[in-house]
Amino acid sequence: MEIKNRIIGIDFGATFIKFGLLNLKGEILKKSSFPTKAYISRKSLISGIIAESESMVAGLRKRLLGVGIGVPGQVDYNKGVIYNLTNVKGWRGVHLRDIIKSRLKVPVFIDNDANAACIGEAKWGAGKGFNDIICITLGSGLGSAVMIEGRIFRGRGYSAAEMGHICIERYGLKCNCGGRGCLETFAGNSYIVKEAVKRLKKGEKSQLLKLANGKFSEITPKLIDEASKEGDRFSINVWKRMGENVGIGLSSIVNTFNPEVIVIGGGVAKSGKILFGSIRTTIKNRAIPVFTRDLKIRRARFIEDAGTVGAAALVLE
Amino acid sequence: MEIKNRIIGIDFGATFIKFGLLNLKGEILKKSSFPTKAYISRKSLISGIIAESESMVAGLRKRLLGVGIGVPGQVDYNKGVIYNLTNVKGWRGVHLRDIIKSRLKVPVFIDNDANAACIGEAKWGAGKGFNDIICITLGSGLGSAVMIEGRIFRGRGYSAAEMGHICIERYGLKCNCGGRGCLETFAGNSYIVKEAVKRLKKGEKSQLLKLANGKFSEITPKLIDEASKEGDRFSINVWKRMGENVGIGLSSIVNTFNPEVIVIGGGVAKSGKILFGSIRTTIKNRAIPVFTRDLKIRRARFIEDAGTVGAAALVLE
Repeated sequence: MEIKNRIIGIDFGATFIKFGLLNLKGEILKKSSFPTKAYISRKSLISGIIAESESMVAGLRKRLLGVGIGVPGQVDYNKGVIYNLTNVKGWRGVHLRDIIKSRLKVPVFIDNDANAACIGEAKWGAGKGFNDIICITLGSGLGSAVMIEGRIFRGRGYSAAEMGHICIERYGLKCNCGGRGCLETFAGNSYIVKEAVKRLKKGEKSQLLKLANGKFSEITPKLIDEASKEGDRFSINVWKRMGENVGIGLSSIVNTFNPEVIVIGGGVAKSGKILFGSIRTTIKNRAIPVFTRDLKIRRARFIEDAGTVGAAALVLE
Repeated sequence: MEIKNRIIGIDFGATFIKFGLLNLKGEILKKSSFPTKAYISRKSLISGIIAESESMVAGLRKRLLGVGIGVPGQVDYNKGVIYNLTNVKGWRGVHLRDIIKSRLKVPVFIDNDANAACIGEAKWGAGKGFNDIICITLGSGLGSAVMIEGRIFRGRGYSAAEMGHICIERYGLKCNCGGRGCLETFAGNSYIVKEAVKRLKKGEKSQLLKLANGKFSEITPKLIDEASKEGDRFSINVWKRMGENVGIGLSSIVNTFNPEVIVIGGGVAKSGKILFGSIRTTIKNRAIPVFTRDLKIRRARFIEDAGTVGAAALVLE
């Protein structure tokens, strides 16, 4: 009998569906992807997912241990049913797990993408060896997942741990969720660009605008990162302020969950030491001391591949 | 054989140690108490607790099912060891559970008082029939406990769920915990009196000062409650503002834990409909709609007896 030591992790995104073939050490052996809109119907998209999965394991089909799928939305993990996808229509009530399982004839697992990313970090990444983990993803918004005593906290109705919607400013800006002053309005890609543009328009001085060819519309988190690395005080402060905001939100989370480690991933997290330094200092200054004594704050190991690696980790959870 | 249908619940407070004898329906059959400082040494205090427990069940000793103890501080629930008591010195590392057990020869359980109160409400009170419960106690400060899937969330190091130290105002007042703008600085007995006095000193008009015989020092939450019931607009607004603050903090908790029910107890919670109305409206307006659809916000059933009833409930957990 062949040893089953291959896993497929599928990152079901609103714009791309990404595939990763992994071994049991969490190493990616092969990647592929196609645009989510490449297929016009739900049925043909599922067929596309199955065909791509088959092609990932061509020649070593018998070694496939299982398939994990991370989706952007609410999932009944136990039943393998999608309840609702953010920015992807027409998937309500789809038993995606069983459909894929019946075709590929291997165990299939499906979960929310933030939960999957957290399991990936716990299994092979920055959360390895810990049982109480908070995982934050700083992308366009702020995603989050919680692991308590080694188990993902899924919440009733498969919804909980919306850390981006912790209020850090009573009378702050209106948030998309309906609340006010949510952490997500103070962090992430959209926030940092808006914050930089707002301050530049007020007349604050920076090299940033020159790097952006004088156009506000060309300012990106990447550019702010570059400017800060070149010593631009303005850009450094933009990162610092965002780090302070994230640190304030995370302090509430520390006081609530008392985690062993906070893992921070997502595109924005790639941007250097200034952000992490500011997050760490703020938590140290703000959260209850007995909770921060041996708290670790780490950068995620998986950034671009967080989705596929996390999905693959579902198979081994 | 006699049926074991009596429980003793002990509320180990910094000022009083209270005893309750309960039946299995959670009804209090007998109460007693003595000042915590009535005994000079820890050893004699423990003897006093045992003697009082014995006297509670005099004549029906064989019907005693067990003893529960709630303490104000960190406890290793599994080992029955006290780690740290707030405002009571000299109890670090005491194996209180086993000491009491060896003397009374019945099962003994010990936990943090907020956890005990939550278990009491879940068993016999406003949380009955629910598995995902947030329990808040509005007293001088803000105590809290969380039940997830029917189990108290105790956290590593027996510390977590410090809901009073969720930040609701980034650059708010310094809190005792070391943070800033914590919910506890915006709620509870101390807050409401300070808020009323501050506004009266600014010249806002109210019947309150007359009720307090013109003395700021005689303003109490009870008096503000009375004034608001007599229609004093100022006092009504003081309650409303506190309700809004509590609602803002609880909205973060709802978005994080997605509970079925929030139970609010403590002395301040006795004060009427205005406070609860304001809390409910704020959560409805602020928290993620899918989380609030069937969320219940209830007044605790046990207020004065929350400590003894909760401690007794530990025996049946």
